[in-house]
Amino acid sequence: MVVVMDPGATKALVDAVIDRLNDYGFDVHRSNGVGTVLGAVGRQLDFDLRHIKILDGVKDVFRGTSPYKFAGRTWHPDDTLVDVDGVLVGGNEVVVMAGPCAVESEEQINETASAVAAAGARILRGGAFKPRTSPYAFQGLGEEGLVLLRSAAAKNGLKVVTEVMRPRQIDIVAQHAHILQIGARNMQNYPLLQEVGRAGLPVFLKRGMSATVEEWLMSAEYILAEGNPNVILCERGIRTFETATRNTLDLSAVPVVKKLSHLPVFVDPSHGVGLRDKVTPLARAAVAVGADGLMVETHPDPPQALSDGPQSLYLDEFADLMEQIQRVAEAVGRTIFEAREVAA
Amino acid sequence: MVVVMDPGATKALVDAVIDRLNDYGFDVHRSNGVGTVLGAVGRQLDFDLRHIKILDGVKDVFRGTSPYKFAGRTWHPDDTLVDVDGVLVGGNEVVVMAGPCAVESEEQINETASAVAAAGARILRGGAFKPRTSPYAFQGLGEEGLVLLRSAAAKNGLKVVTEVMRPRQIDIVAQHAHILQIGARNMQNYPLLQEVGRAGLPVFLKRGMSATVEEWLMSAEYILAEGNPNVILCERGIRTFETATRNTLDLSAVPVVKKLSHLPVFVDPSHGVGLRDKVTPLARAAVAVGADGLMVETHPDPPQALSDGPQSLYLDEFADLMEQIQRVAEAVGRTIFEAREVAA
Amino acid sequence: MVVVMDPGATKALVDAVIDRLNDYGFDVHRSNGVGTVLGAVGRQLDFDLRHIKILDGVKDVFRGTSPYKFAGRTWHPDDTLVDVDGVLVGGNEVVVMAGPCAVESEEQINETASAVAAAGARILRGGAFKPRTSPYAFQGLGEEGLVLLRSAAAKNGLKVVTEVMRPRQIDIVAQHAHILQIGARNMQNYPLLQEVGRAGLPVFLKRGMSATVEEWLMSAEYILAEGNPNVILCERGIRTFETATRNTLDLSAVPVVKKLSHLPVFVDPSHGVGLRDKVTPLARAAVAVGADGLMVETHPDPPQALSDGPQSLYLDEFADLMEQIQRVAEAVGRTIFEAREVAA
Amino acid sequence: MVVVMDPGATKALVDAVIDRLNDYGFDVHRSNGVGTVLGAVGRQLDFDLRHIKILDGVKDVFRGTSPYKFAGRTWHPDDTLVDVDGVLVGGNEVVVMAGPCAVESEEQINETASAVAAAGARILRGGAFKPRTSPYAFQGLGEEGLVLLRSAAAKNGLKVVTEVMRPRQIDIVAQHAHILQIGARNMQNYPLLQEVGRAGLPVFLKRGMSATVEEWLMSAEYILAEGNPNVILCERGIRTFETATRNTLDLSAVPVVKKLSHLPVFVDPSHGVGLRDKVTPLARAAVAVGADGLMVETHPDPPQALSDGPQSLYLDEFADLMEQIQRVAEAVGRTIFEAREVAA
Repeated sequence: MVVVMDPGATKALVDAVIDRLNDYGFDVHRSNGVGTVLGAVGRQLDFDLRHIKILDGVKDVFRGTSPYKFAGRTWHPDDTLVDVDGVLVGGNEVVVMAGPCAVESEEQINETASAVAAAGARILRGGAFKPRTSPYAFQGLGEEGLVLLRSAAAKNGLKVVTEVMRPRQIDIVAQHAHILQIGARNMQNYPLLQEVGRAGLPVFLKRGMSATVEEWLMSAEYILAEGNPNVILCERGIRTFETATRNTLDLSAVPVVKKLSHLPVFVDPSHGVGLRDKVTPLARAAVAVGADGLMVETHPDPPQALSDGPQSLYLDEFADLMEQIQRVAEAVGRTIFEAREVAA
Repeated sequence: MVVVMDPGATKALVDAVIDRLNDYGFDVHRSNGVGTVLGAVGRQLDFDLRHIKILDGVKDVFRGTSPYKFAGRTWHPDDTLVDVDGVLVGGNEVVVMAGPCAVESEEQINETASAVAAAGARILRGGAFKPRTSPYAFQGLGEEGLVLLRSAAAKNGLKVVTEVMRPRQIDIVAQHAHILQIGARNMQNYPLLQEVGRAGLPVFLKRGMSATVEEWLMSAEYILAEGNPNVILCERGIRTFETATRNTLDLSAVPVVKKLSHLPVFVDPSHGVGLRDKVTPLARAAVAVGADGLMVETHPDPPQALSDGPQSLYLDEFADLMEQIQRVAEAVGRTIFEAREVAA
Repeated sequence: MVVVMDPGATKALVDAVIDRLNDYGFDVHRSNGVGTVLGAVGRQLDFDLRHIKILDGVKDVFRGTSPYKFAGRTWHPDDTLVDVDGVLVGGNEVVVMAGPCAVESEEQINETASAVAAAGARILRGGAFKPRTSPYAFQGLGEEGLVLLRSAAAKNGLKVVTEVMRPRQIDIVAQHAHILQIGARNMQNYPLLQEVGRAGLPVFLKRGMSATVEEWLMSAEYILAEGNPNVILCERGIRTFETATRNTLDLSAVPVVKKLSHLPVFVDPSHGVGLRDKVTPLARAAVAVGADGLMVETHPDPPQALSDGPQSLYLDEFADLMEQIQRVAEAVGRTIFEAREVAA
Repeated sequence: MVVVMDPGATKALVDAVIDRLNDYGFDVHRSNGVGTVLGAVGRQLDFDLRHIKILDGVKDVFRGTSPYKFAGRTWHPDDTLVDVDGVLVGGNEVVVMAGPCAVESEEQINETASAVAAAGARILRGGAFKPRTSPYAFQGLGEEGLVLLRSAAAKNGLKVVTEVMRPRQIDIVAQHAHILQIGARNMQNYPLLQEVGRAGLPVFLKRGMSATVEEWLMSAEYILAEGNPNVILCERGIRTFETATRNTLDLSAVPVVKKLSHLPVFVDPSHGVGLRDKVTPLARAAVAVGADGLMVETHPDPPQALSDGPQSLYLDEFADLMEQIQRVAEAVGRTIFEAREVAA
C-alpha cells in the first residue's frame, strides 16, 4: 500500500497516519524525497484501503499489489491449459461450446448435438437449471435435462458444460457434466464459488454484468483458492447505457485479462448482443481479438425455444458461423477443430 | 404487446407476423388507422418480445403491460404495511435499521444495540454470514453471530434484520431474525428468492448494483409469488462510471418505485457512498425524497471493524444523524421514533 | 506521481524507468523500504501517466496530486461566494433559479417571471439559444429572447441566467445576462470555456452527462485559469443504465465536490429526472444534501411548452415546491429568500 | 406514436388523452381490440413523447418511427459511398486513416506520413486544433499544423482528415483537409454540426462517449439535413464502469448501425482502449466485425508525443497491424489497400 500525504499535511498528521498503519500491523517506510509518501507492507490481501483514505491529511491511497494471488500472472506466468476430458482449453485451438439455452427434449438436444458436432464444436452446452428474471418463465428440466444432455453429447463425441445455480445442485450436475458453469448472475455468489472450487471439475466462470475485470478475477480466486486450478473465464457483455443491444460485449476485456491472468478466456456473443443477426459478426471479432474459445447458443427451432430463442442461431446459421470463424482463426494463427463425420 | 410494422412492410410480411403471433397463442387485433399496428393479447407474462422484434418488417415491439403482477400498483393500489413484530414499516414513521456491518463480538453488538436504540433506531442490523469480494476476508461468525445479535436486540427492544446468503441458511437465520435480508449480489439468486418467499418472515430486498427498477420489482415478484406479501425494498447505490463514491445512490428510484409499486422503499446511504463523511448528508436526502426508512452502518470502533469500517459511523455520529433526519422528517410531514431511555 | 514497481522487476527495469522519468524532466526519489516505489516531481500538471504505466516492470502509477489548482481547496480553503449583481451565491442562503426551458413569448416569460419572483426565486432562467438533439426541434428566439428575458427579470427584481452555445454568442448574451450558462453537452467545449472565462461574468457550469467529478472540476479550471473566479457548478444527472428516469441525479456529488472544491454547487432536478411529478421530491433531497441552490424549470402552460414541457412544473406546482424546500432548508440550517409582493 | 392506456383507465381518461393528442395536431386512431391502444400520426419528428406519458391513465408511449429521416435506411436502403477525392469509403475496401494524435513538427508528420503510406494507409490523420481535458496541455499548432499535414499527405499520396473544434475554424481547416472530423466531445455541439454540414466536405463524426446509437444518428442527421450526404461514422469507445481500459470499445455498434443506417462506419481502437498494447487486437476485431475502416494513432516516437503517446503505435507496430488486418480482411471477404513503394 502506498499512502500519499497532502502537501499541506502537518508533521502531527503524518505521524498519526503512521501510528494508525502500525496499529493495523503494517511496517511503514516513509519517504520525504518528493512530498511525503508512506509505503506500508505486511497485512492481509484484503485490507480495506478506505480505512486510511478517510484519515486527515491523506491525499490518496493506492494498493500497489493485486488483491488476488492465484489468478494473476505474477506467480504463474505461463498460460493455464485446462484438460476437459481430453479436449485442451487455452492452447492454440479455439474451442467452441454450442447448444441450446435450455435442454427441452430428447429430440431437441440430440438434433442439436449432432449438428454442432458436425460443424466442429467440441463441447455441448444446455441448461437444466435455468435462472430466469421472471418467476413465470420456464425453469428447466432439472435432472432429466442433465441425463438427456450427457447422452446427446456422448453419442456425438462432445463434452458437456452446464450451469449450477446453488450448492445443492453440484453433486447431481457433476455426475453428468465435464465442466460446471457459473452464470453471470452468480459471479459473486460466494458459497457457490467455494463449493464448485471443491467439486473437482473445471469451472466456466461468466463475468457478472456489472463486474470489473478485477472483481471477475477475485471471483476466480475464490475457486482457485479451494485448490481447483481449472477455471475458464467467459466475457458475456456488460451493462451500459446503450439499449440497442442486450448488453455491451467488452471484447477489450480479452487482451486485458490475458495480460493480468494465465487463465483461458472465452467469449459468449449470444448473450453479449442478444439478437441472432449480430451473433456471427461478434463471434468473428471475438476470435480476431484473441479469445481462446466461444460459447454460442443454437437451436433446431429458435422461434419455439423455451428460452433465449431470439439470440439462438438456427443450426445452419451455426454451421455458417463455424466456417466464418475458421477463416478468421487461420488469419490470426489459431486453429479450429475441423468439421467431421459423426455417427448420430 | 404492441407491434409496430415498418411503413414499407408488404401485406405478406404483415400477414406473416400475424401468423407467428397466432402460433404463439396470441389473439391479434390489427389497426391500419395510422400505419400498421398490431395489438396482441393472451400469453404468459414472460413472453420474450425479441421473438417478434427480429421478424422481417417489424419496426418495434412494446410490452404495454408490466411483467409483474403482485409487485405493481395496478391490482394493489394501496401501500403495503409490513408488520415487523409490532413495528410498522411503510407507514408515516420513517423506520431506521442500524448496526454494524458484521457481528464481531458480544461486547461490540451489545454496545451498538444500546446506542442505536437510545438514538431512535427500531431494528438492529448485523451480518452473521458475510458475502465478501475477497476469499481472504472475514466471512462472519455464523450461528454464534445470530445468537449474539438477537440477544443484543432483545435487551434493547429492537427487532433484528440479517442477511441470508444461501437457501441452507434460511432455517437457522429465521430462528433468530425478524426480517431476512437479501443482499445486492443475490438480488437475482432465484433459488434463494423462492425459498425466502416460503419462509414466513418479511424480506428486505436490496437492489442489485446493476439492476433496473423493473428487474428489482421482478425479483420482488419471485418472493411475492410464493405467497409472502411482506417485502421491503432497499436502494443501496448502482454502479456507474463515477468512482468518487463506492456506488451512485439513485435517490430518484424512491419516487419511481413508489409510483409503480405498493411496497415500502428504504435507502442504505452507507453502501451508497462508501465513505463515512458522506453518509449523513445522503441520509438527510433520503428522508427528504420520501424513503420509508433507512439502513445505516454504525460501529463502536470503525477503524477496527472487521468489514466496511470506513463507511460505518461512530456511535455518536449515528446519534447526530438521527437528530438531523428527525428535523428533515418533520419538514416533510413524517415522524421518526423518538430517542428513549433504555435499560441496557 | 508515484510509481510502484512490480515485485519481480529487475534492477535494470527499475533503472530504465528512472531514466525515462528523468528524460521527462522529473526529479525521482527511490524508496526500497517496502518493495520499490518511485516518487517523481517537477513536471506540468497534465503529464500523461500512461507514459509510465506501459513501461516494463511497472505495476501501477498514481498521480498523488490533483490535476487542477484553481478549482481545488488545497490553495483556496474557503468557500467561494459569487456576487451576482447583489445576490450572493454560495453562502447560507439556498438560491433558486427558475423559469422556462426556452423563452417563447413576452407574455410567457413575464407571467413566469412574476410568479417565480413571488414564490421566492432570485434568478430567472430561460433559453434563447437552445441545443436540441433533433435538428427539427425549436432552436430558440435568439437575441429577441434575450431582450424579453432581461426585461421580464428587471420588472420582477430578478437576475438572469441563460445559456451560450458558441463563442460568437458571448457578446450578445453578456449584454443581457448576469450569469452565462454552459450546458451539459458543452462541458468539454474548450474554446467556449476559455472565452466565457474572459467574459467578465459569473459562469454556471453544468456537469456533462458522462463527466466524472474530476473532469467537471477540470472544465471549471479552464474558466478559472482565464482569471474568472466566479464559477457555479451544477449537477444535473448522469447517464447510467437506468431508463426509468431521463438521467440519474447524482446527489452524492454535492458533498463530494464540497470537499474537493470551494466553488458553489447547485442541483437541477428537472433535467435530473425528466418528469414533472418527480421534480419536487428531488428538489427537497437536493436541499437536504447540502446544495447551495437549485435550477428548476417551470412554465405557465407546460403541455404547450416548445421544449422540455414534460419536466416543467406548472407555476402553482413551483410555488408549492418553494414552500416545501423552505421547510427542508430550515431543517438543515439554511435559508431561502422569502416570498414577497412584487409589482408585476 | 402508439399510446397504450392502462387496463384500468376510464372512458373519461381515454377521451382526455385523445383530446390532448388532437390538440397537439395528431390524427388519432383508437383500437379497442385488445386493451385500448391509440395510434397517432401527423406531427413533427421531434414531438416529445413525455407530454403524453405523464397524462393520467397512460401506461406507456412509444415512438414507432425513427426520429431521423436522412440517416436511416427506410428511405435510403443502399449503402452510402463517400468519395474522398478518389478514395472510396464505404465499399469493399477497408480504408485505414492513420497518423499522430497531433501534428508537432514537419519532421514528425513527414516521417509518419511516409511510413503509414508505405504500410497501406489511405488517409493521414493529425490534429492541429486539439481539445484537451486540461487547460495546461498542448493545444496544437493551429494553421501551421494544417499546412504541414497537407504537405506531408501530398508527398505520400494520402488524403487528410483533421478535427474542427469550432465554427470559426471551418474555413481554414477546409482549405487543407479532405475530411472534417468532429470529435467525440463535440458530437452534440449543434452549431458546429450545422456549419460542417454546409462546408461541402465529407464529415467524420465520432460517437460521443455517452451517446446512444440513436443520438449518434441524430447528430449525423444535423449534418445530412444541411444537404451534405457524405458522413462517415466512427465508434471510439463509450464510457462504462470498467476502468481497465480508457473506454469500452462497443464493436457491436458496427452491425447495429449497419442495419439502421446506410452510412459507412469506422472504428478507432486507439481511443477505444487507450493503451498501445491492446490496439492491434482490437483493430483485428474491428475488421472482423465488419467495420468499413479504421482510424489508428501512430507516432515516430510515442514516448515523446505531445498528446496521447501511450495509445500511439510505433511506426513499425503500425506496419505490423496493417499486415495483421490484411489477413483478417481477406478472411471476411474485404480488401485492404496494398503497401506500396512511395517517393518520400
